[in-house]
Amino acid sequence: MTDTLTQGDFRVADLSLAAAGRHQIRLAEREMPGLMALRSEYAGRRPLAGAKIAGSLHMTVQTAVLIETLTALGAQVRWASCNIFSTQDEAAAAVAVGSGTPEEPAGVPVFAWKGESLEEYWWAADQIFRWPGGGPNLILDDGGDATLLVHEGVALEKAGGELPERGDDEGRILRATLRASHRENPRRFTELAAGLLGVSEETTTGVNRLYRLARTGDLLFPAINVNDSVTKSKFDNRYGIRHSLTDGLNRATDVLIGGKVAFVAGYGDVGKGAAEALRGQGARVIVSEVDPICALQAAMDGFQVTTLDDVVGQCDFFITTTGNTHVITADHLQRMKPGAVVGNIGHFDDEIDLHGLSQVPGVNRVEIKPQVHEWTIPTPGGTTSIIVLSEGRLLNLGNATGHPSFVMSNSFANQVLAQIELFTRRAEYDRDVYRLSKELDEKVARSHLDALGVRLTTLTGEQADYIGVSIDGPYKSDHYRY
Amino acid sequence: MTDTLTQGDFRVADLSLAAAGRHQIRLAEREMPGLMALRSEYAGRRPLAGAKIAGSLHMTVQTAVLIETLTALGAQVRWASCNIFSTQDEAAAAVAVGSGTPEEPAGVPVFAWKGESLEEYWWAADQIFRWPGGGPNLILDDGGDATLLVHEGVALEKAGGELPERGDDEGRILRATLRASHRENPRRFTELAAGLLGVSEETTTGVNRLYRLARTGDLLFPAINVNDSVTKSKFDNRYGIRHSLTDGLNRATDVLIGGKVAFVAGYGDVGKGAAEALRGQGARVIVSEVDPICALQAAMDGFQVTTLDDVVGQCDFFITTTGNTHVITADHLQRMKPGAVVGNIGHFDDEIDLHGLSQVPGVNRVEIKPQVHEWTIPTPGGTTSIIVLSEGRLLNLGNATGHPSFVMSNSFANQVLAQIELFTRRAEYDRDVYRLSKELDEKVARSHLDALGVRLTTLTGEQADYIGVSIDGPYKSDHYRY
Amino acid sequence: MTDTLTQGDFRVADLSLAAAGRHQIRLAEREMPGLMALRSEYAGRRPLAGAKIAGSLHMTVQTAVLIETLTALGAQVRWASCNIFSTQDEAAAAVAVGSGTPEEPAGVPVFAWKGESLEEYWWAADQIFRWPGGGPNLILDDGGDATLLVHEGVALEKAGGELPERGDDEGRILRATLRASHRENPRRFTELAAGLLGVSEETTTGVNRLYRLARTGDLLFPAINVNDSVTKSKFDNRYGIRHSLTDGLNRATDVLIGGKVAFVAGYGDVGKGAAEALRGQGARVIVSEVDPICALQAAMDGFQVTTLDDVVGQCDFFITTTGNTHVITADHLQRMKPGAVVGNIGHFDDEIDLHGLSQVPGVNRVEIKPQVHEWTIPTPGGTTSIIVLSEGRLLNLGNATGHPSFVMSNSFANQVLAQIELFTRRAEYDRDVYRLSKELDEKVARSHLDALGVRLTTLTGEQADYIGVSIDGPYKSDHYRY
Amino acid sequence: MTDTLTQGDFRVADLSLAAAGRHQIRLAEREMPGLMALRSEYAGRRPLAGAKIAGSLHMTVQTAVLIETLTALGAQVRWASCNIFSTQDEAAAAVAVGSGTPEEPAGVPVFAWKGESLEEYWWAADQIFRWPGGGPNLILDDGGDATLLVHEGVALEKAGGELPERGDDEGRILRATLRASHRENPRRFTELAAGLLGVSEETTTGVNRLYRLARTGDLLFPAINVNDSVTKSKFDNRYGIRHSLTDGLNRATDVLIGGKVAFVAGYGDVGKGAAEALRGQGARVIVSEVDPICALQAAMDGFQVTTLDDVVGQCDFFITTTGNTHVITADHLQRMKPGAVVGNIGHFDDEIDLHGLSQVPGVNRVEIKPQVHEWTIPTPGGTTSIIVLSEGRLLNLGNATGHPSFVMSNSFANQVLAQIELFTRRAEYDRDVYRLSKELDEKVARSHLDALGVRLTTLTGEQADYIGVSIDGPYKSDHYRY
Repeated sequence: MTDTLTQGDFRVADLSLAAAGRHQIRLAEREMPGLMALRSEYAGRRPLAGAKIAGSLHMTVQTAVLIETLTALGAQVRWASCNIFSTQDEAAAAVAVGSGTPEEPAGVPVFAWKGESLEEYWWAADQIFRWPGGGPNLILDDGGDATLLVHEGVALEKAGGELPERGDDEGRILRATLRASHRENPRRFTELAAGLLGVSEETTTGVNRLYRLARTGDLLFPAINVNDSVTKSKFDNRYGIRHSLTDGLNRATDVLIGGKVAFVAGYGDVGKGAAEALRGQGARVIVSEVDPICALQAAMDGFQVTTLDDVVGQCDFFITTTGNTHVITADHLQRMKPGAVVGNIGHFDDEIDLHGLSQVPGVNRVEIKPQVHEWTIPTPGGTTSIIVLSEGRLLNLGNATGHPSFVMSNSFANQVLAQIELFTRRAEYDRDVYRLSKELDEKVARSHLDALGVRLTTLTGEQADYIGVSIDGPYKSDHYRY
Repeated sequence: MTDTLTQGDFRVADLSLAAAGRHQIRLAEREMPGLMALRSEYAGRRPLAGAKIAGSLHMTVQTAVLIETLTALGAQVRWASCNIFSTQDEAAAAVAVGSGTPEEPAGVPVFAWKGESLEEYWWAADQIFRWPGGGPNLILDDGGDATLLVHEGVALEKAGGELPERGDDEGRILRATLRASHRENPRRFTELAAGLLGVSEETTTGVNRLYRLARTGDLLFPAINVNDSVTKSKFDNRYGIRHSLTDGLNRATDVLIGGKVAFVAGYGDVGKGAAEALRGQGARVIVSEVDPICALQAAMDGFQVTTLDDVVGQCDFFITTTGNTHVITADHLQRMKPGAVVGNIGHFDDEIDLHGLSQVPGVNRVEIKPQVHEWTIPTPGGTTSIIVLSEGRLLNLGNATGHPSFVMSNSFANQVLAQIELFTRRAEYDRDVYRLSKELDEKVARSHLDALGVRLTTLTGEQADYIGVSIDGPYKSDHYRY
Repeated sequence: MTDTLTQGDFRVADLSLAAAGRHQIRLAEREMPGLMALRSEYAGRRPLAGAKIAGSLHMTVQTAVLIETLTALGAQVRWASCNIFSTQDEAAAAVAVGSGTPEEPAGVPVFAWKGESLEEYWWAADQIFRWPGGGPNLILDDGGDATLLVHEGVALEKAGGELPERGDDEGRILRATLRASHRENPRRFTELAAGLLGVSEETTTGVNRLYRLARTGDLLFPAINVNDSVTKSKFDNRYGIRHSLTDGLNRATDVLIGGKVAFVAGYGDVGKGAAEALRGQGARVIVSEVDPICALQAAMDGFQVTTLDDVVGQCDFFITTTGNTHVITADHLQRMKPGAVVGNIGHFDDEIDLHGLSQVPGVNRVEIKPQVHEWTIPTPGGTTSIIVLSEGRLLNLGNATGHPSFVMSNSFANQVLAQIELFTRRAEYDRDVYRLSKELDEKVARSHLDALGVRLTTLTGEQADYIGVSIDGPYKSDHYRY
Repeated sequence: MTDTLTQGDFRVADLSLAAAGRHQIRLAEREMPGLMALRSEYAGRRPLAGAKIAGSLHMTVQTAVLIETLTALGAQVRWASCNIFSTQDEAAAAVAVGSGTPEEPAGVPVFAWKGESLEEYWWAADQIFRWPGGGPNLILDDGGDATLLVHEGVALEKAGGELPERGDDEGRILRATLRASHRENPRRFTELAAGLLGVSEETTTGVNRLYRLARTGDLLFPAINVNDSVTKSKFDNRYGIRHSLTDGLNRATDVLIGGKVAFVAGYGDVGKGAAEALRGQGARVIVSEVDPICALQAAMDGFQVTTLDDVVGQCDFFITTTGNTHVITADHLQRMKPGAVVGNIGHFDDEIDLHGLSQVPGVNRVEIKPQVHEWTIPTPGGTTSIIVLSEGRLLNLGNATGHPSFVMSNSFANQVLAQIELFTRRAEYDRDVYRLSKELDEKVARSHLDALGVRLTTLTGEQADYIGVSIDGPYKSDHYRY
């Protein structure tokens, strides 16, 4: 394990970064009006007093503001990152230190640093479930790894400590973590799951997992799908990516985007944000899609829509946004132009089959700088090489700092409201997947308007009656698509 | 009544326009691959044989292709326009003539011409319910006027022939039409309603009315909400407006859009298309919204968002897209810059309170050309004047020719599928409002891809399993927003 | 000759359109602040008193405001259109009528109507040089046809009445016109040329001709190149086209632009405006260029740049902007997709080789509506057809109404200033081609700012010194490119 | 002086960064086809053999490729950066090491490191003129500081060692450097200037200085204005800024740009690129201008144009692009919103009057991270604070890595061609300012097309004749503006 500080109940890269992190957290608070409005609204009421939250979400400056909003509302929190590269070490340090000093930290137990190994990653995930005196009663999740850990843990305990191996590295390491837990306490996750009031989850990938668990009856506790709040999926996924994709590309490579050809796999919200950002920098964007509706949208938005096979030799950038597997295969990777830049902003690292590429004889990998690798590939006439970002993991987090604060303020306000729902209205929720009400969605949006100088129009009574809504909203039917 | 041709069972402006209309219909067929695909798919099967469709929808070239698709599938059809200005007379003539000649028309009974009076409008609406030997069994509606006529007719018959007056002109004329019908046959609409298998409706305004009827239990027959097919609301409302708004402005005024300030009331799908079109021409767009989520979207898309009151004196164009009432008041109209251009692409003409303006002492109206009026308004120091398009009715239809064929092919393919649903699977539908399945939505999208040169990617079996869908779709959950 | 009104010294389509034209001229004046500012500035001074201007420029509503500005400044004017399709008949009528009535017109001698034959065109061009009591002393030109007429006339007179035939139709007809003039007076153009103080010319094509004449010593009088005022070439050519290209396409075809593939030949100012307009409507634009600098600009602006040969079978729209010849050949035209729309916004009609296409056996042409033709082309398996706009002439003028008033106010303010220069400072100009000073260019720009709500920043004295300019400008070196 | 390595004839931050720098230089070579084409074209011919170039230009990775192109063509080179923050230390190290090792460097004498003091800056500028055995014979300049040093040096020597003080810090330090030189050798710069064949200069600011020197007869040697090559000013200034402005903002602050209001002072090429980049990220951009033509362009491009005074309290970002002085005053800085981000991409740091702000009582400055400072400003009710980037110097270089390689390949290919011109055709150049020929400009563009997949169209002979150019170009008149 990396030799990081271990004193106290946390593990971060370097506590001396706390002051720098605190500066950035302070500036970020100005950019997160949704979270700050919740702090004001609930000032003194502490609706989360008694809540014990296991958090698994990129440990960035923005997440620090989320964590400190949860604690301001009364919660206790333990935290890990949900990605091995996404931690900003100065943010982790500042949160760990809290109002203390590096010598006497009194902050939140954080287990996260930039550049974890997979073993360290799952060790950290396990730490957020280790509470003094009983487990957590809530999970706050991003991508579903914390939820997965509990579900797989329960399954393994049910199966008496052994489950069939999963083929991939990550599955193998997760199982090893769970077997160690089983040896320590063969009912640890079973007991822990019983105490959970629910999870709030904010990614497309994570909620897809939850819906599948609910469909098969395997979901162990209630879940709130925060991803499908409009103020999450249509903001974070789209406008966050619009910002952080080009940021990640630039910090990683300094390569001109303008005039180049950029391939974007997928035209969902993330793909839409990606395509807009690349076009905004003067690139010519080519989109691939499997869904005819999204494909038609891409065409109507002026993009060429075709298959990767058709254009793999012509593009300068390849960006995956799908949340699916092997969208770019090892074969594709070998057919790219010299200097092509390949990165993922979908979800898991298997969108790009780097594992497959690494098995090709003669392929070689050189680190140009952290999270930027040149892969040299043999060709009939010699070699070619391409640039791969963040080892195929989320490049906006690995090569830059993720989405900016203002966008995350929307997503995280939904997370906080979901945690309050699960904790304070627990009787309303079964072992199923729920969405937040449109009232709450509109409330989150409303809390971000002033900061952008937006002046909202108010319906007259006559107008509200005319369209059959209340003056104060909600204004749209549930199936409205924005 | 306008002195139009009345021989035979139709009424159009000028049958001699039929040849010109047929040319345009023939060219439009190339741009409506969705409708042509349905003609091919059902060639020989005639699934609508026996269907008698009362159609109320802008009588344009595109609608001609819709009508002739319905008849190719076996239906009988009677048709009126749903807007007094939206008929393209050459299209109406061509449909009325069908395969006949102007001397011996053998086409579809069409009751529509550009520039109807309100009396003529409701007379025409009434004609589509007058079938030889029994009423229609289906309604195909746009804006809900055909549906309204039946519901108000039934209500008036229930009330014994009298209902409290509605204040507006249009309500008064509708009532007069219904009282005449009552005198003719006091159970005419009651019997007619009993024979209806349902209505398919394609506008936001129309479906809102339907949902309200369903909520109060007053809906007299099943309804399919075609508006909320993604391939309708996200295409027609957005991309259709992007095309036809600037088209309408240009044909009406020839005023430069670039460099000007354009105010767009509402940032729903129509507002989004409007704002994009105006920006695409170099205007600076200011948006107003009542819904905080849409307001936040507008801001994130780079538009200033504020109230009309704040900027009414600075804007060069004012476009309403809300489907609400009195969005621009008589007071606003008096505070605009000289030369301001005011138009509506929402739904009804009361979005702009021209009635109120006409009551202001000293206000005067001059026709510059058809559907373009200069309103002269007294000011303390003299007079000012503004330009009003299409008397506050839909300017894209009144001043131009509505949405282009390709967009309407999406909307109308949904309409045809809805009519087939209601007619062939009638047992599945109660007196409620339904949406078409995602399978049909994706099918409509798919039929438009080839024409745009789109090449769709096919999921591998592994990928389909990974995200838990079938290879052939549908690909998204019902709450997915696109 | 078309049977138009001939009473009095003018020829227009229909004097009864004068009232409608006057309405539009009155509204256009609000959109032409540059011309109106010149009327104010010179009110009472009449700097053009004594000037006799032969004008050859599209006889539109905007040109009417130009003409009436020239007369307000004291000039006498005779006018023809410089394109057979570009006249707006109501504008021509209003100008001809002036302050009179259709019965007693007392306006400007205008010789222009929409849809002239080539014989009529050159007849009209000749009319503007027939002044009672001596010829004009100034030419105001667009495309150079009036200048060409004089130069060819002088050449033919020098050659004793005969010149070698020019191959094309237009050349043949021009020669016939000149021979008729020669028979009437064998020194008519020679004497006329001697009396000319100069010409102001506003098109790229026209000024190229002028520079060539100047280089070879054949230029007969001074010329001011108005085209290369920034406020002309960077405004009219670019922003005017951005407006009027899509306007022309829409009025002609009603075909959806969004989602389609549009080919633009040339990426000069006109091409830049065209590409921006098409992209703004959601088309995917492909550009061709011969100039590597412009090609690189197109690529950096995000457009695919390739040859027409490469993509002729994939595009839905083909727009020529080059001012060159046979940019689209008969061969290209035969290889296009069914339904492809082909139009020119460059300059002359030979950009698209329709003459060549018409020679292909089996090719057939049908008028869909005025200025819109379907050309049916035999293929091995049957026939295909494409749509050609305005017979290959300027589609924005033939299918719509040309550039909007505000843009033309910039161009025409330059024209007026050039006429004042040539007339009042004649001693400064030799038989060469000149540009207007940067002071005048900035003056034109300045007069258009208020109407757009622009507030200009004023340099401090310190700042003006720092960059070495006067506080009031001019602000840039002559080679600055904007 | 910073304690950097001093062994050998160079000064850089850390030679151990050389390997990392070499990786980046190798990748950058793929992105600089213009420079690589020159290396190929002149392979073996060494046209710069004998040239001794004093280079003053941001010591980045791209500049490393420039330097090594100059040496590949036979030149000897000494190099300093022209900005205290713009050096990339790994690039400087790699160039200094050359083909040697950190222990035995045998590369180019580089005097540059990130974060120089002003004293160090002018010391380094002086070093590039200290050649063993006589001075340089060429200057390659960016911003004109190397040229300034020589001109001020000569002036001071003429004046006998003393000149009136310049008020600012930088002037004071420059004078001190020159006085030291004078003490060492009272004719050093006079002799050095006599040996100079000329300078090539690439910035607007620098060439403005040169034109002023030429006008007053004070220019000491020929100058080539590389800035006004189209492939420089319209590429580097515009497309480079489009890339590097948002890159700099993101790395510095991680603040969301979308939905925010961004103020851009100036709408020249740099301002155009800045506005496009910010809009491309979803910001609402407000522009200020002094030049009415540029102001009108900004309006026509859809931007609000007004004065800073009008909107200083509403904007979130303030970007100066003018090359002028005190564009943002101390008063403006005090009236900004809390959290406003202020940066300069114009030229000198006096665009933003931070010196004035620092004199305001109670104002305080905290470093958040290098090149990012929070300035706390007293207000009547407490304090506010704003964020200032790179201490008012070029933020794209100070906070990011400057323009990307591909853009710089255009600019630097012009620089190399200018150096070849001055060295090999010295007889053609007097003490005046020249521009490169259009042939060379087109050549530079041409060498960048393949890398972007651009396929150029070739004129036919008929077409070339028609527009009066050669098939191979040049294609445009000198006054053409692109």
